[in-house]
Amino acid sequence: MKIIKSPEEMQRIALDLKRSGKTIGFVPTMGFLHEGHLSLMRVARSQCDVLVVSIFVNPTQFGPNEDLDAYPRDFERDEQLCESELADIVFYPESGNMFAGDASVWVDEDALSGVLCGESRPGHFRGVCTVVAKLFNLVQPDLAVFGEKDAQQLRIIERMVRDLNFPVQIIRGPIIREADGLAMSSRNKYLTAEQRKNALCLRKALDLASERMAKGERRVSNLRKSMVDLIDAVPEAEVDYIEFADDGTLEPLKNISGRTLVALAVKFGATRLIDNAVLIP
Amino acid sequence: MKIIKSPEEMQRIALDLKRSGKTIGFVPTMGFLHEGHLSLMRVARSQCDVLVVSIFVNPTQFGPNEDLDAYPRDFERDEQLCESELADIVFYPESGNMFAGDASVWVDEDALSGVLCGESRPGHFRGVCTVVAKLFNLVQPDLAVFGEKDAQQLRIIERMVRDLNFPVQIIRGPIIREADGLAMSSRNKYLTAEQRKNALCLRKALDLASERMAKGERRVSNLRKSMVDLIDAVPEAEVDYIEFADDGTLEPLKNISGRTLVALAVKFGATRLIDNAVLIP
Repeated sequence: MKIIKSPEEMQRIALDLKRSGKTIGFVPTMGFLHEGHLSLMRVARSQCDVLVVSIFVNPTQFGPNEDLDAYPRDFERDEQLCESELADIVFYPESGNMFAGDASVWVDEDALSGVLCGESRPGHFRGVCTVVAKLFNLVQPDLAVFGEKDAQQLRIIERMVRDLNFPVQIIRGPIIREADGLAMSSRNKYLTAEQRKNALCLRKALDLASERMAKGERRVSNLRKSMVDLIDAVPEAEVDYIEFADDGTLEPLKNISGRTLVALAVKFGATRLIDNAVLIP
Repeated sequence: MKIIKSPEEMQRIALDLKRSGKTIGFVPTMGFLHEGHLSLMRVARSQCDVLVVSIFVNPTQFGPNEDLDAYPRDFERDEQLCESELADIVFYPESGNMFAGDASVWVDEDALSGVLCGESRPGHFRGVCTVVAKLFNLVQPDLAVFGEKDAQQLRIIERMVRDLNFPVQIIRGPIIREADGLAMSSRNKYLTAEQRKNALCLRKALDLASERMAKGERRVSNLRKSMVDLIDAVPEAEVDYIEFADDGTLEPLKNISGRTLVALAVKFGATRLIDNAVLIP
């Protein structure tokens, strides 16, 4: 397994691989890898000649008051995990080599980005789209795997690939959960033992909505209220958003009639966790 | 020479060519080709295995009151000219196949785009950057040639390639002029015989600035005033802008000390012509 830090070297090697007819699979990450990331690597590994994993904590997707500096990092452990998943290349660039001081070109998505996480994190998806466009150009993947955990990000990346005609197949990797149901996330590390227990309320709220829908409830206001009540009863848990959106357009719904994305973000102190499910009535 | 209308087919063929080790040279155009475009094709032709010329009047770079519908088109003549320049592929997509009705991803440049043409044509360079990013992904060029006639566009595309890491070498093609000095442009066709004569004032104003600078004048206000006076004396000519900008950052200058882009846009009735020169004191 090769560790590449230079964007120019990454691109040169990727172009050489493509010219020699090799297919490249790609899993972009911000590191501090967990079972969720590894599951994405396994999906990619089985469908390509060369597996590239990038580890880059992208500054442009963090807001000014967010956890960029505190974001957990452990490159040596990440490196071992990539090796154990049979990655061929770990692309591990430095921020200064990825973004010029006078960088002025950005990729913006303006239909799916304004809701859900986009509302509480302005500029976040501009940062995500821009860095993913850059990574696609550097890594030249035939396919890339993104997790369903970041539901909105996944749909925005699919839209970007369509609208900018990137020759990249986007594969959706399912949410990987701890045994008790908490969705895996690098940010779970921030939680105290007490918060860790309480964080199960995200999944429980999603299950509650699903059960009530199965029993016939279609009004979003009712479903949402039962989720809010469940979370409000949990110590320290503060709802950031709970939204029911059309799974294709991410437009907010009043009633459930087709495929519906239920997504929520809940804060425990400074730690913000997200989870989601797709409801099919 | 092959005519390809389908974006999917263009991309498939381009990826196949790359896999087989061929280099692709690219000249993007809006058609109605003239000697300026042909000069760009000759530059590309000499440096690649496969020459692709695109002909696409991009709706997203025209403002609501601009000449999208009136923009001159003559595909049969263009096709013959491409053939005579030994193009291998003409990519000639329809607008509906290039932009989805719900397209929502855009490439924005926010440092070089606000001045010069960007000031009088808001959204223009967003449309340019987006379509060029799409064309790069569809055509997969190793090199692309852009004319110095569109000085701001050229610098913005170079910035986009740098900031989004497109693996494309951008080559600058010099301005091609008629025998009397008028820069070639598809829009020259709109001019009446009288306007055609008067349109020489763009080049004359640039030459005047260059001569005065050679004699020691460095104050932009003085240089600009002599250009405005020259053009104001010409019937029907209306100055849209005359700007002196740092050649790298496009920031407006008060005094000339290094490489300076002098760019101007002049209207003759509804027809807007541009020209430019680089001054080196």
